[in-house]
Amino acid sequence: MSLARHRKNPAAPITARPIVTLTSDFGLRDAYVASMKAQICRICDRARLIDVSHGVPAQDILCGSIVLERAVDGFPAGTTHLAVVDPGVGTDRRLLIVAVNRQFVVCPDNGLITWTWRMHPGAIAHELIWRPAKYSATFHGRDVLAPVAGMLADGQSLETLTRPIDDPILFDITPACATDTSGQIIHIDQFGNATSNISARMLPAESKLQVQLRGKRVRPLRLKRTYWDVAPGKPLALIGSSGLLEIAVRDGSAARELKLAVGDLINIKS
Amino acid sequence: MSLARHRKNPAAPITARPIVTLTSDFGLRDAYVASMKAQICRICDRARLIDVSHGVPAQDILCGSIVLERAVDGFPAGTTHLAVVDPGVGTDRRLLIVAVNRQFVVCPDNGLITWTWRMHPGAIAHELIWRPAKYSATFHGRDVLAPVAGMLADGQSLETLTRPIDDPILFDITPACATDTSGQIIHIDQFGNATSNISARMLPAESKLQVQLRGKRVRPLRLKRTYWDVAPGKPLALIGSSGLLEIAVRDGSAARELKLAVGDLINIKS
Amino acid sequence: MSLARHRKNPAAPITARPIVTLTSDFGLRDAYVASMKAQICRICDRARLIDVSHGVPAQDILCGSIVLERAVDGFPAGTTHLAVVDPGVGTDRRLLIVAVNRQFVVCPDNGLITWTWRMHPGAIAHELIWRPAKYSATFHGRDVLAPVAGMLADGQSLETLTRPIDDPILFDITPACATDTSGQIIHIDQFGNATSNISARMLPAESKLQVQLRGKRVRPLRLKRTYWDVAPGKPLALIGSSGLLEIAVRDGSAARELKLAVGDLINIKS
Repeated sequence: MSLARHRKNPAAPITARPIVTLTSDFGLRDAYVASMKAQICRICDRARLIDVSHGVPAQDILCGSIVLERAVDGFPAGTTHLAVVDPGVGTDRRLLIVAVNRQFVVCPDNGLITWTWRMHPGAIAHELIWRPAKYSATFHGRDVLAPVAGMLADGQSLETLTRPIDDPILFDITPACATDTSGQIIHIDQFGNATSNISARMLPAESKLQVQLRGKRVRPLRLKRTYWDVAPGKPLALIGSSGLLEIAVRDGSAARELKLAVGDLINIKS
Repeated sequence: MSLARHRKNPAAPITARPIVTLTSDFGLRDAYVASMKAQICRICDRARLIDVSHGVPAQDILCGSIVLERAVDGFPAGTTHLAVVDPGVGTDRRLLIVAVNRQFVVCPDNGLITWTWRMHPGAIAHELIWRPAKYSATFHGRDVLAPVAGMLADGQSLETLTRPIDDPILFDITPACATDTSGQIIHIDQFGNATSNISARMLPAESKLQVQLRGKRVRPLRLKRTYWDVAPGKPLALIGSSGLLEIAVRDGSAARELKLAVGDLINIKS
Repeated sequence: MSLARHRKNPAAPITARPIVTLTSDFGLRDAYVASMKAQICRICDRARLIDVSHGVPAQDILCGSIVLERAVDGFPAGTTHLAVVDPGVGTDRRLLIVAVNRQFVVCPDNGLITWTWRMHPGAIAHELIWRPAKYSATFHGRDVLAPVAGMLADGQSLETLTRPIDDPILFDITPACATDTSGQIIHIDQFGNATSNISARMLPAESKLQVQLRGKRVRPLRLKRTYWDVAPGKPLALIGSSGLLEIAVRDGSAARELKLAVGDLINIKS
């Protein structure tokens, strides 16, 4: 019986710990984030709350997806991640609990789980069916998702809150394959570094590699190990801290200086 | 005896829990907020510290008052809220501990408690008489208010620190009455949404309602349930997450596009 | 034997507590700070994490040094401070654990410890020799320093991680001496207040003091006790909350209005 249950739901035996991270596009000037934290504390008094980012650009679900994956990648098993970039609040879009990398993600079903889903195989999606007796039409992050994050951190089981689904909404971005010779820019960070979907594992030996940026111009870049391997102001390609190929400018903004944007193609030549 | 005491001070039996929230206009670039947190930790080592906002515009006590109320509304009984927007630091303005909504607020007596006081009837104000042996002239948030927040979180009783008063300084903004047909804008959030002092309880049925913005122009708006009920870029009125009537622009800034400011009149026609 | 050990290393008997503060130039939009917090939580599950600032201007080690000192000044004994402004990441610059003011600072050896070292005599520097089995070339804050902060917070001893050194890199800024009649501006805060290296202890009686700003112009300022001692918009000198002489403009920015910058000379005349 327990075997059968595990086959249906390998995420079941995750033991929660009372760490809850928060990712949103709510900014830090108003009390929206604190309102979510208040609801988590109401359910799980001992929760330790850790902000990932509330500076996701407004309604930029893809950006939120990339930021969220970094948290899921780093935190220990049993952590709960609350992620709210939710332009569809008040519509009938679904809400999710995703069991992934031995952790829980609570978020709207609008693509926000995409990059976490792609980078951490074996994720299992559940539609949240629990709702409070009364809740607003405009702030499900506070009224529905935050209490659920508190329940998970408090040790409540997924089964009572959800039903399994197999069709979470995912954006059409994927890690590049080992046989690919091109990829694309998936994220521009606040410093103007451009992260691609090309992982270090897929690349041939560093010294032999050339990176071509297509679009406004073709610019071949050699792959370097650190920023210090080029002069100040010079562009470079390197393996960033997320294990993905990054385009950067030492002491500068690659996005601005090389006119890079999310979606730009990157070609690899060895 | 205990009855008499309760009649004089209904706030007495609040049982503190070691959650302290922080609201200020100190920003996040320097160490001012951390200096307050350090003093709280010195008094109450197990305190769990939760930032509400440190992005209140400099010296904007009214804005701080609206943000603070959201925290008092959400957190569980026994929470202590430290709020410091304090342009009068170094003068002889009083300091307060207010028992409200089964929680404590520690703040200067300069109007910062106003919106919390208006929205949560039964608040009781106390003047803080405790002072440390030595403290600076320019940072009472760190030297006086933060240690007091730590003491409350640690379970110390109000009585030893304060004397009751009945005249805290309050701004002249109040929730609109059920018989009012007009109200005003009391807050512009970071996204440009304009919150009014008109609560959902005071409004007639939604579909019949028109909202008029007076001033630079008269613009009638129908009351909607969510942002999705209008096209992108279009203005709407809705009940915001704080239960108050809000003016918003879908995917835009109502403050900028409708030229709204705090104090603007709003008329209701059913 | 224990005496000999104490003579060699007076920092040994610091008893850690599970408070870890974080200071960096990583900003708050991406997940870099959360990635460090994740590693701390992996090592020390009960760690309480407190942000000092992640708004240090990019690669501004001196600014980070001033901000960090405020945290070291305020927090209780046993606190661990993780500070990462690290333009040299990926080079062979050393990493440090500094025992100072009964606390630990974990940071790169690039001058970031300077102001803490100057203001808290008796600091002892240790070179971090511990390294994880595998770590990135671009994010030692996450891969090396954060785990070490977690180990210290968890009670692990310095000796197993480090070797003592006596030559940490220090910038050439020092507190002004009692016999000095001039000093310099060492920090501009986010409000435009200019902090000097002149401490209150070195100054003659307040009312007799004149402060001259040299450079673009000579402007004598009287020393005041609070901002309220001058009219709005007027400049003043006062003892700031860090105990150092500050130049400010009431309700304005001294840096902008008086054209002040880090390094500007300040003369004192009594």
